[in-house]
Amino acid sequence: MQKLSIIKIGGNIIEDETSLDAFLKLFSNLEGKKILVHGGGKRATSIASKLGIESKMVNGRRITDKETLEVITMVYGGLVNKNIVAKLQANNTNAIGLTGADINSIQSDKRPIKEIDFGFVGDVKKVNHTNIDKLIQADFTPVFCAITHDGNGQLLNTNADTITSTIAVEMSEIYDTSIYYCFELNGVLQDLNDKESVIKNINSATYKELLKDKIIIDGMIPKIDNCFDALKNGVQKVYIGNASMITKEKDNFTTITL
Amino acid sequence: MQKLSIIKIGGNIIEDETSLDAFLKLFSNLEGKKILVHGGGKRATSIASKLGIESKMVNGRRITDKETLEVITMVYGGLVNKNIVAKLQANNTNAIGLTGADINSIQSDKRPIKEIDFGFVGDVKKVNHTNIDKLIQADFTPVFCAITHDGNGQLLNTNADTITSTIAVEMSEIYDTSIYYCFELNGVLQDLNDKESVIKNINSATYKELLKDKIIIDGMIPKIDNCFDALKNGVQKVYIGNASMITKEKDNFTTITL
Repeated sequence: MQKLSIIKIGGNIIEDETSLDAFLKLFSNLEGKKILVHGGGKRATSIASKLGIESKMVNGRRITDKETLEVITMVYGGLVNKNIVAKLQANNTNAIGLTGADINSIQSDKRPIKEIDFGFVGDVKKVNHTNIDKLIQADFTPVFCAITHDGNGQLLNTNADTITSTIAVEMSEIYDTSIYYCFELNGVLQDLNDKESVIKNINSATYKELLKDKIIIDGMIPKIDNCFDALKNGVQKVYIGNASMITKEKDNFTTITL
Repeated sequence: MQKLSIIKIGGNIIEDETSLDAFLKLFSNLEGKKILVHGGGKRATSIASKLGIESKMVNGRRITDKETLEVITMVYGGLVNKNIVAKLQANNTNAIGLTGADINSIQSDKRPIKEIDFGFVGDVKKVNHTNIDKLIQADFTPVFCAITHDGNGQLLNTNADTITSTIAVEMSEIYDTSIYYCFELNGVLQDLNDKESVIKNINSATYKELLKDKIIIDGMIPKIDNCFDALKNGVQKVYIGNASMITKEKDNFTTITL
């Protein structure tokens, strides 16, 4: 099978133009078929605030009301996504910016109201790998923002990590697929106080040890559980680290395998 | 040659949700290959104003400074474009929203500074009909907003009518191409005070008469000149009228031919 790399970048890269430009150059130099997924960063919050839209939080979690969804559609789907596409074109990557509504690529269900009404938030239901592959086969590079749709005309705010892993799982039916989760750290750390203490390899057996020894704790647990879910469902490898890991010139990042 | 319809809609449709929904239903029922081009309407002005960005006008013409371009990218490329795409998906049209940066579809030159510095405004240089056709051949329906790029990473605000005619001319190399310019009137009027006085057909000969008799005046002249340019460069037919003309159930619109 042909190789496909799915790279997710977050706010730390998007919010700093120098970091973004440097990353997009690395991304453009990455050989083979590839997909980029980006979050939105704090830009949406600052624009919402300027527009007089309050960020509503319930139990520490953000609520996407109608006005907030409009800001997210503007910032993630417009400002961030289209600037990334234009910059990739300047790097000779034939990018195409997408939400899940475009070519019906990612359909989701509006999250059901239980204790909390999250508003216009979507949980991914179906990735259309046939349509996404038509773009890849045409030598276009898909750039996804963290927005999906419900198939009935409603856009929905959706977690970028989940979009990444769900696309990867679906694409793994036709490609040898790897995920690169780029974040601010060099990788999963042995010691949170030592940024160089990257755990180079995690597999199912060593993960159990790391959990038992309380080396992997808190928010990192669901992230890595999510990686193992992707691996169990067909993804070949998952990498976690600083954006520079995609060049693999250094080995200072975390590789997760089954 | 296969037929291709290129439909341009303006602010009067975009700004009113009922009109937009009705139009998108008509558009979805239109048979054959098709492309939608939309302007932005007044939404960008109102959001700019809320963000404290002044609309700068010189000699009655809008200047697109850096902040205004950001708003345009948010509103045209994000909010308007992606909501149209989601609504089209709900109508079973497999839409894909694009700026000229996506798949390098429309490259433009930043307008040179002469008496007026228009800022980040682009004059179309090159439409990549091969890339656009890859989408059409994949049974996707391109939806363009009025933004292009310079190939060096810069997005540029670009006239939607010009985008429409330039795409149409380029696509006419491989399709039997028609343009539908949808606006608030039923067509080009014989008498501006009588909205029903639509001139059904205009060709090069009758156009000269209409100009001589001062029936076509002012802003309508460059619009129709632009239509004749498209026709001289390969486009088969140009229609001007109310959005409902695309069904052709009534003949109350203007058809322009050479």
